[in-house]
Amino acid sequence: MDDDRPLFFHVMAYADAADGDVINMVSGDPDWEPPTALREGLREFADAPVDDYQYPPSEGDTALRETIAARHDVPVERVVVTNGAGEANHLAMACGLDAHAGSEVILADPVYPYYANRAEMLDAEVRYVPADDDGRLDPVAVRDAASADTALIVTCSPNNPTGAVYGEEIKRELTAIAEETDALYVSDEVYAAFDYTGRFHTALDFESSNVAVTSSFSKAMATTGLRVGYGILPKHLIDPVRTRHMLTNVAVTAPGQHAVLKALRETPEDYYAETRALLRDRIDAFCAALDAAEAEYTRPEGAFYVLARFDGFPGTLENVKRLIDEAGVAGMPGDAFGSAREDWLRFALVTPRATEAADRLADYFA
Amino acid sequence: MDDDRPLFFHVMAYADAADGDVINMVSGDPDWEPPTALREGLREFADAPVDDYQYPPSEGDTALRETIAARHDVPVERVVVTNGAGEANHLAMACGLDAHAGSEVILADPVYPYYANRAEMLDAEVRYVPADDDGRLDPVAVRDAASADTALIVTCSPNNPTGAVYGEEIKRELTAIAEETDALYVSDEVYAAFDYTGRFHTALDFESSNVAVTSSFSKAMATTGLRVGYGILPKHLIDPVRTRHMLTNVAVTAPGQHAVLKALRETPEDYYAETRALLRDRIDAFCAALDAAEAEYTRPEGAFYVLARFDGFPGTLENVKRLIDEAGVAGMPGDAFGSAREDWLRFALVTPRATEAADRLADYFA
Repeated sequence: MDDDRPLFFHVMAYADAADGDVINMVSGDPDWEPPTALREGLREFADAPVDDYQYPPSEGDTALRETIAARHDVPVERVVVTNGAGEANHLAMACGLDAHAGSEVILADPVYPYYANRAEMLDAEVRYVPADDDGRLDPVAVRDAASADTALIVTCSPNNPTGAVYGEEIKRELTAIAEETDALYVSDEVYAAFDYTGRFHTALDFESSNVAVTSSFSKAMATTGLRVGYGILPKHLIDPVRTRHMLTNVAVTAPGQHAVLKALRETPEDYYAETRALLRDRIDAFCAALDAAEAEYTRPEGAFYVLARFDGFPGTLENVKRLIDEAGVAGMPGDAFGSAREDWLRFALVTPRATEAADRLADYFA
Repeated sequence: MDDDRPLFFHVMAYADAADGDVINMVSGDPDWEPPTALREGLREFADAPVDDYQYPPSEGDTALRETIAARHDVPVERVVVTNGAGEANHLAMACGLDAHAGSEVILADPVYPYYANRAEMLDAEVRYVPADDDGRLDPVAVRDAASADTALIVTCSPNNPTGAVYGEEIKRELTAIAEETDALYVSDEVYAAFDYTGRFHTALDFESSNVAVTSSFSKAMATTGLRVGYGILPKHLIDPVRTRHMLTNVAVTAPGQHAVLKALRETPEDYYAETRALLRDRIDAFCAALDAAEAEYTRPEGAFYVLARFDGFPGTLENVKRLIDEAGVAGMPGDAFGSAREDWLRFALVTPRATEAADRLADYFA
């Protein structure tokens, strides 16, 4: 998920209203084809018996949960299907705050802004830990920030907005810190399919009862509007999360679950490999243009965002608008993602015109 | 929505495991065909461009919101599309509790149990007001129960489980009470399409800023698993509800919204009239059998549930199981809906075998 609204909407609206031709790199909406089997699954569902149109099990379709459980090598009881990773993350945060001592949420800075907004909605305090130059959390800094008051540690890897992939060591350490402080480590792994380094590790590996993993098919299957995600929960959170999910949403859309299950079963690994190759090409072209523009940036190890800083051109909303009007490229202001990268701009490489956008930026800053 | 889980699940599982042939009248899942245009909408979506597969606006597809607004004659700003009426009800209750003084929720007894469970989840107190013999709230009794501590009044009309339709006068009075006590009146109108009396009135009629209406297409279009509903909110709750919706769910499933919009535009009134005729026939047959069994019951004025009491056969879980084993009919124990009808049984007339079930009950209690 990637909805930095209302700032997001504001930038989108400005880009749409601009006079010239604007390449939209604001939002994290994939622009490539979803799996063929996913479309086929929706087509199948259109002709399904009436019974299939009624409430699916609140915790998710059984076959879908079994497939997810098998892919993650966890017992099916731990899987709850949700309305996208967004709901899974909300449920894990809400129930984690209820079940664990303390009221503080440790987040990286820069950060995907919904985590902070959710913490605020849930009456929790946010404690930001600045990411290092590579866009990763340093567990030493997290340990310094953690205390008996820490209820949650929330990370996203591969990361939005930095593109960093947290390796095994970082996640092991974050898990250990959660265990030591009786906190819940919520690991958002929604970009797991977009790892260009081979270093991605799931936080499930450590078999800790202080870890919840949230994910979805929105990015991997290029269908952010389908709204099918899931949480994998430690034992003590299964019942609270199921109850809260039931009272919030009753169940998750049946045609979407049907389509995702079919796509999970029938989509060849090539589909994901081709998407990665496509994105790697865009990253190469974009980073080459950033080099030409003498911008500061970190080459993404995963996901599909690039944070960049142009000399004398801080990433304010005003400059974002200038870039739309004068260069024909729309990005997001860095301060949408906290204070640590407020001088930067984020570009989402989810347009077939990413290379063209890169050339425009190189020309503009030449 | 109609998920009285886990009791609901327990009864369903028992009915499924029973040796003999059992007619399932446990759950409120429609058994008739959804509109043709709804299936066609899903089929269309299967071939939609990639862009249509991405995040729809968080507050709902614009054309869908405009269509809903026009049907209810309200400004489009007041409409938020939700993951079924369940989410709409949750959002209205949560934001209503935040915005209005007090922490008490007035509910009818018997009641659709999710309202009470949501109140509990939101740390509110429930104050039950017993329904009258016709299954309706008496505004005089509600006025006696209401106080400065009342934050919400929540009703469902046409009613699950009593089948009562609250007329204009009751809703006008409940609205006035909400205004007098600075409370929010949340009117769940999800069964509005199933009114056999012509007495149904929407609480929107009174143009009060103390009224929120929640509904969905789940029952009217026989698609409880699609998860497309909506809330119509008073001005002061629009922003809080949109924010909470965004942070909980991000957005509602795009194929479902597309299918519902097409169905709203293209489904003839006949579709709804035929469904009502079908249900009226079932109600006639079922009530005739209840007469033959000398049961106490109230003929439903709306929705598709019948509450009945059989002499010497209280509606306990034990007796529900006996009825499954000995009569081959599965209903719900009355105490799932509060204490006022705990001696009763609820039967959902959502099976083509409703008449056969009625005969079985008449034989069993003969």
